[in-house]
Amino acid sequence: MDAATLIGIISAFALVITAIMMGSGLSVFVDVHSLMIVFGGTFGATMINYPIRDVLGVFKVVKHVFFSRIWSSQELISRFLEFSRKARRDGLLGLEPELLKLNDPFLIKGLQLAIDGVEPEAIREILETEIEYLQERHRAGAEILSTMATFFPAMGLIGTLIGLVQMLRVMEDPGTIGPAMALALLTTFYGAVAANLICLPMAGKLRKRSKEETLIKEMMVNGIISITNGENPRIVEQKLHSFIPPEQRESRYRSRIES
Amino acid sequence: MDAATLIGIISAFALVITAIMMGSGLSVFVDVHSLMIVFGGTFGATMINYPIRDVLGVFKVVKHVFFSRIWSSQELISRFLEFSRKARRDGLLGLEPELLKLNDPFLIKGLQLAIDGVEPEAIREILETEIEYLQERHRAGAEILSTMATFFPAMGLIGTLIGLVQMLRVMEDPGTIGPAMALALLTTFYGAVAANLICLPMAGKLRKRSKEETLIKEMMVNGIISITNGENPRIVEQKLHSFIPPEQRESRYRSRIES
Amino acid sequence: MDAATLIGIISAFALVITAIMMGSGLSVFVDVHSLMIVFGGTFGATMINYPIRDVLGVFKVVKHVFFSRIWSSQELISRFLEFSRKARRDGLLGLEPELLKLNDPFLIKGLQLAIDGVEPEAIREILETEIEYLQERHRAGAEILSTMATFFPAMGLIGTLIGLVQMLRVMEDPGTIGPAMALALLTTFYGAVAANLICLPMAGKLRKRSKEETLIKEMMVNGIISITNGENPRIVEQKLHSFIPPEQRESRYRSRIES
Amino acid sequence: MDAATLIGIISAFALVITAIMMGSGLSVFVDVHSLMIVFGGTFGATMINYPIRDVLGVFKVVKHVFFSRIWSSQELISRFLEFSRKARRDGLLGLEPELLKLNDPFLIKGLQLAIDGVEPEAIREILETEIEYLQERHRAGAEILSTMATFFPAMGLIGTLIGLVQMLRVMEDPGTIGPAMALALLTTFYGAVAANLICLPMAGKLRKRSKEETLIKEMMVNGIISITNGENPRIVEQKLHSFIPPEQRESRYRSRIES
Amino acid sequence: MDAATLIGIISAFALVITAIMMGSGLSVFVDVHSLMIVFGGTFGATMINYPIRDVLGVFKVVKHVFFSRIWSSQELISRFLEFSRKARRDGLLGLEPELLKLNDPFLIKGLQLAIDGVEPEAIREILETEIEYLQERHRAGAEILSTMATFFPAMGLIGTLIGLVQMLRVMEDPGTIGPAMALALLTTFYGAVAANLICLPMAGKLRKRSKEETLIKEMMVNGIISITNGENPRIVEQKLHSFIPPEQRESRYRSRIES
Repeated sequence: MDAATLIGIISAFALVITAIMMGSGLSVFVDVHSLMIVFGGTFGATMINYPIRDVLGVFKVVKHVFFSRIWSSQELISRFLEFSRKARRDGLLGLEPELLKLNDPFLIKGLQLAIDGVEPEAIREILETEIEYLQERHRAGAEILSTMATFFPAMGLIGTLIGLVQMLRVMEDPGTIGPAMALALLTTFYGAVAANLICLPMAGKLRKRSKEETLIKEMMVNGIISITNGENPRIVEQKLHSFIPPEQRESRYRSRIES
Repeated sequence: MDAATLIGIISAFALVITAIMMGSGLSVFVDVHSLMIVFGGTFGATMINYPIRDVLGVFKVVKHVFFSRIWSSQELISRFLEFSRKARRDGLLGLEPELLKLNDPFLIKGLQLAIDGVEPEAIREILETEIEYLQERHRAGAEILSTMATFFPAMGLIGTLIGLVQMLRVMEDPGTIGPAMALALLTTFYGAVAANLICLPMAGKLRKRSKEETLIKEMMVNGIISITNGENPRIVEQKLHSFIPPEQRESRYRSRIES
Repeated sequence: MDAATLIGIISAFALVITAIMMGSGLSVFVDVHSLMIVFGGTFGATMINYPIRDVLGVFKVVKHVFFSRIWSSQELISRFLEFSRKARRDGLLGLEPELLKLNDPFLIKGLQLAIDGVEPEAIREILETEIEYLQERHRAGAEILSTMATFFPAMGLIGTLIGLVQMLRVMEDPGTIGPAMALALLTTFYGAVAANLICLPMAGKLRKRSKEETLIKEMMVNGIISITNGENPRIVEQKLHSFIPPEQRESRYRSRIES
Repeated sequence: MDAATLIGIISAFALVITAIMMGSGLSVFVDVHSLMIVFGGTFGATMINYPIRDVLGVFKVVKHVFFSRIWSSQELISRFLEFSRKARRDGLLGLEPELLKLNDPFLIKGLQLAIDGVEPEAIREILETEIEYLQERHRAGAEILSTMATFFPAMGLIGTLIGLVQMLRVMEDPGTIGPAMALALLTTFYGAVAANLICLPMAGKLRKRSKEETLIKEMMVNGIISITNGENPRIVEQKLHSFIPPEQRESRYRSRIES
Repeated sequence: MDAATLIGIISAFALVITAIMMGSGLSVFVDVHSLMIVFGGTFGATMINYPIRDVLGVFKVVKHVFFSRIWSSQELISRFLEFSRKARRDGLLGLEPELLKLNDPFLIKGLQLAIDGVEPEAIREILETEIEYLQERHRAGAEILSTMATFFPAMGLIGTLIGLVQMLRVMEDPGTIGPAMALALLTTFYGAVAANLICLPMAGKLRKRSKEETLIKEMMVNGIISITNGENPRIVEQKLHSFIPPEQRESRYRSRIES
């Protein structure tokens, strides 16, 4: 999990929980009955809205996005410079041993295609198709999370209305109104927390990471094509640099040549 | 009905109803008067908003979308490979007996056109027009459901305002306030449930299914054209594969050839 | 007025009024003071927002759209087949007596231009310009209704705030709070009803009818051009059929030929 | 100021004020403290949001739009027919005395350029650039008004929260709650009135007038170019007619010729 | 900091604070507990939503935008006229001493490239890329501020719900309700203030300044290219004038020539 997400979750939840505990016990904010309405109802509405495969896919996409490591562009470029030099020295077959050291399936697949002698244009097509379907999965995940962020507060409202109606019907002893109303408000609280501290920021991060991952994968595609075409490391670096902001472009190639 | 929708409806409604019954009887939440305002008012506003044919069409579209089976792409591809082989062996007329085994009117119509010797481009035009009008019907259905999802909470608010005004006018015995207010809140409850557990997720699913059905029908159109052109099964499979994600493309053709 | 609108208005208003009368007299919901704020305020804001001509134009557009009859496409096509046969038999001048039987000014104008020997391209340009300005008037009408649908609830809120402030300032006898608050809520009620049962659905229907009317008028333009060009009735029918969904295309031409 | 705006302002404000005065004195609704929060806060937020020049520009744009007269298209066309006849008779220099009778700076500038012998294409470019910057100023004005329409209710809410917190902290004598709460609600009232009766309709009118003014100015540009090219008055009229709906096109040229 | 922002912040905050202090002490509106929930929660949600680098980047972008000076277009044009004259007299190398007097890194870099003899098209490409990444940073900053403007009120609501639930659970002594509720409302107050007086107007100003800065930098790029091409000062001025509204185009060139 990346640092920002971790810091975010800790500061958001820890602060809210601490703030709660300064005022009362935490148990006051746990009610199975209310959790059932808000989470069950939202889950149900989401299942009606989306195909079952997509809903279950969200967990996978979220897990992948929050826990899988993304290459830094610097690291990727310097790796591709090595590949490029090795390929020019030993031929594309010389990259075979490098594959064992990698654990990024997309990169391995692309390099394997190059080693197998597939035409550059065919490699590009295969890899671009994979990037497209990846983006589609990310997009679907972010959309489901956003939809859930609209169902959660709605279910919170529905739960509160149920609680209020039940309370008002039997309102005899004014002393019981307070606790009953507190209970009724819990579902609104759950809905607001689930939507604003979980679904919305996760959908946002998913969109951000999807862009970053796409960029890195596009760099890989271009790097692999360059290597397949036997291009000079200097050219490879130049091409990959065009994907990143000028101030991050420290030419590792030149420094190595000089040293 | 597909599994996800069924699970969704059960989890959403069963949980809400269970949650209600843990707090009071269910009858507390049924009031004919309030149902009349919310459902009658929303129905009325929808009838003013849309032509009568479109409103009634929603039920048909919804029924079709939730209950009709959609081909899986795998199943469709393997069926088209059979058609393709048979057509190359026995000519297009050889497909005639296959039609009796099918019950998808779109596919039957397309194959019949091919058997009747209609030109490929004319077949494509006829079928594409049908897909367009189908998409239009789906789009209209989803739009009406979304519009109803805005009228439902509005009618809920109107009902609650009616209840509140009536209650406040005659507010003499404070003991009667509770039950009267509970009654007034029921319309808001109905509006929120109808909008968020019925209309919105159904509109969402309709859009999703429309996309899937369009994809399957586009595959059919391309398959039929390929068969009419007497293309090789291998080519047919390749063309149909381009419609689905790479990881779902298990070449059934090759395995059959080999076995 | 078309059936759907009539059914809609009756079901919406009749149900709401019945529901009100089951709980109290209707007079409780009538307050001149509140009507003044909500309707006067919304009218005023609309007059500031739009030129006076456009605001008054809304009534005309709404009346036209809800009360004028639109040709059914079937009816229009069969009428054009007659025109086409007559024009081929007796020349364009033979259509002159037909004009007297029509009462659609757009169609009469178009046919008159054809009879007068105006060039087809000039006829198309004149009629298309008229369609464009018609669409513009419909669009403007729908926009004003939508804008009013945002001003109505706002004026409702303003009215309620006025009522609340006045009530709270002089709150001495708690017994008077109820009725005063009921009165204050009336403006919110008026705003919600006017926006959701009148403005929004009417704007929606206006957009729908505009589309239908445009389609019918486009069919007329194409039919008139075809007749001017002396095209065969079969071709005329085919051209007009391309505007409607395949399942509604019953070829009247062929059946007449055969009978 | 155009009639609609005047009628709008009178009906909106006069009705609201009358309605208030039927329930209480007007002074109940005036509180300096609350005005300060709502208007000061909104002004402040707007100043943070926009460059100082743009905020001050709003007043100028609003004044110009509400008080400057726009030519009616009929009037403009008949004036251009005169110019055109005079220019054909006496040459472009013959228009010089006409300039003194005009007081529309845009028209004067355009005609002066024509008289000075500037090339038609250069005239068009200069005038179109001026129209673009005018539209930009109108667009900026409408945007600022719309932004203010979101800040006003927000400041209203903030003011009410301040009032409520202060009231609740010292809540001892229940008799003081009413008036304190009435005061707290005043800011919400100010925010709603300023947003819905001033900012939103003014932004709307600004957009409408910008369109009208642009149309008139486009007609001027085309008229000036036609005159510079020495075109026949009949052609000038025809060209200008293409900017307005067919039913408003009464050919003044022909009637003059005939009379 | 530009004047408008300063005036805005002072009028917004000073007025709100003055208004508060006229009703109670300011300390009533400070509660660490509530600040923790609203600011901590929003910060947390933002950290989950965006990469850590982007969140920290906001402060830098905001600081840069509010405190760095932007050239006025007049000033820039007159400076470029000087450069242009000097370059024509002394060659591009004659600009070298001018660089020391500048402190705008973008302008220095562009002129240095020109002095170094880089091709005009290459200079344009390098500088345009830098402008693009600058815009991207501004856009990212404005987006994060807008996202925070949706999290702040949500956290305010969550805080208020926590306060209400805690208060209602233990509601025994009615005398304590007031202060407890006042405390609960504080988070809503913080959320509304942070969103509407800080985040939203800052995001708006950021977008405005980004546009202005881009315009100025585009002028610089075009000026540098013109100088590199050895264009005549008159042409340089004309080209730069096309970026600004006609009424601001006072030709300094001509006046200097004449004087």
